[in-house]
Amino acid sequence: MSREISIEKLTAKKFVNFGDVVETKEEPFLINQNKCERHHDLAALEISKGGKFGVSIFSSENYSLPFELSLMERHPFGSQCFIPMSNEPFLVIVSLDENGRPGKPYAFVTNGQQGINYNINVWHSVLTPLSRGSLFAVIDRIGSGKNVEEYLFDEPWVLHSFK
Amino acid sequence: MSREISIEKLTAKKFVNFGDVVETKEEPFLINQNKCERHHDLAALEISKGGKFGVSIFSSENYSLPFELSLMERHPFGSQCFIPMSNEPFLVIVSLDENGRPGKPYAFVTNGQQGINYNINVWHSVLTPLSRGSLFAVIDRIGSGKNVEEYLFDEPWVLHSFK
Repeated sequence: MSREISIEKLTAKKFVNFGDVVETKEEPFLINQNKCERHHDLAALEISKGGKFGVSIFSSENYSLPFELSLMERHPFGSQCFIPMSNEPFLVIVSLDENGRPGKPYAFVTNGQQGINYNINVWHSVLTPLSRGSLFAVIDRIGSGKNVEEYLFDEPWVLHSFK
Repeated sequence: MSREISIEKLTAKKFVNFGDVVETKEEPFLINQNKCERHHDLAALEISKGGKFGVSIFSSENYSLPFELSLMERHPFGSQCFIPMSNEPFLVIVSLDENGRPGKPYAFVTNGQQGINYNINVWHSVLTPLSRGSLFAVIDRIGSGKNVEEYLFDEPWVLHSFK
């Protein structure tokens, strides 16, 4: 079916047009008397139109496959970074923009130890954890103004299973 | 022994002089068609002397009790926020400043679903996870300048056990 989307393992390379994958890198530097690796500066945080950076916690219902995707959103005034607090995989669904609308979505699944940062104005699905009770720390813009745009697909896309 | 420190459960109230506890609150607002709670704006992120906010991952050796505490540090140019990525408790050790030096330390243990944010210039121990392989997302200042001051106690403090 043409509305089917496959789910791929998330990698930084595949995600490069959408934002950052927040994960350990091969060359950290050592701190705290060499007892701690610092994997440094992993996300391009950005805000515009005033406001400030803040940390919030999202606690979402969990989702299961098959998953019907109808709604996408984007944030014109700031990046949005999601850090999983429970070492559990979650789905990451994004689209390139096509004349002000989201194009065909790409779906990824994290390995449990990856966070992500959506660049400003990148179309994405709402938070879609796969496990019950997972918490996510979210670093995004706190401020006034309408910092969300939504788009509803005429017909849903369907995520059936992992590749 | 006078150098012994007890370890208490971390609460926002006990931590108020040091920074924020990043945890779910009683009155979140609902987003994503009411499927997700947003516990909003939980940490007072702050930077000075230029630089920018960034997200890094810390991967530290783990610690066990009894733990001898000799070193404290503080960051004059920015707050520092630690988000546990593995739903595991960690130790949080802080001191009030006494004429430019850390006073007697206070030791707390998190419940696994709590992060913390140290205010600018708050004396704290290095990251002290209790579990092996825990990752922490850290939101702090990325920039130039000497953003760390260290203090070595003449005699270590000892954390023996949980209260």
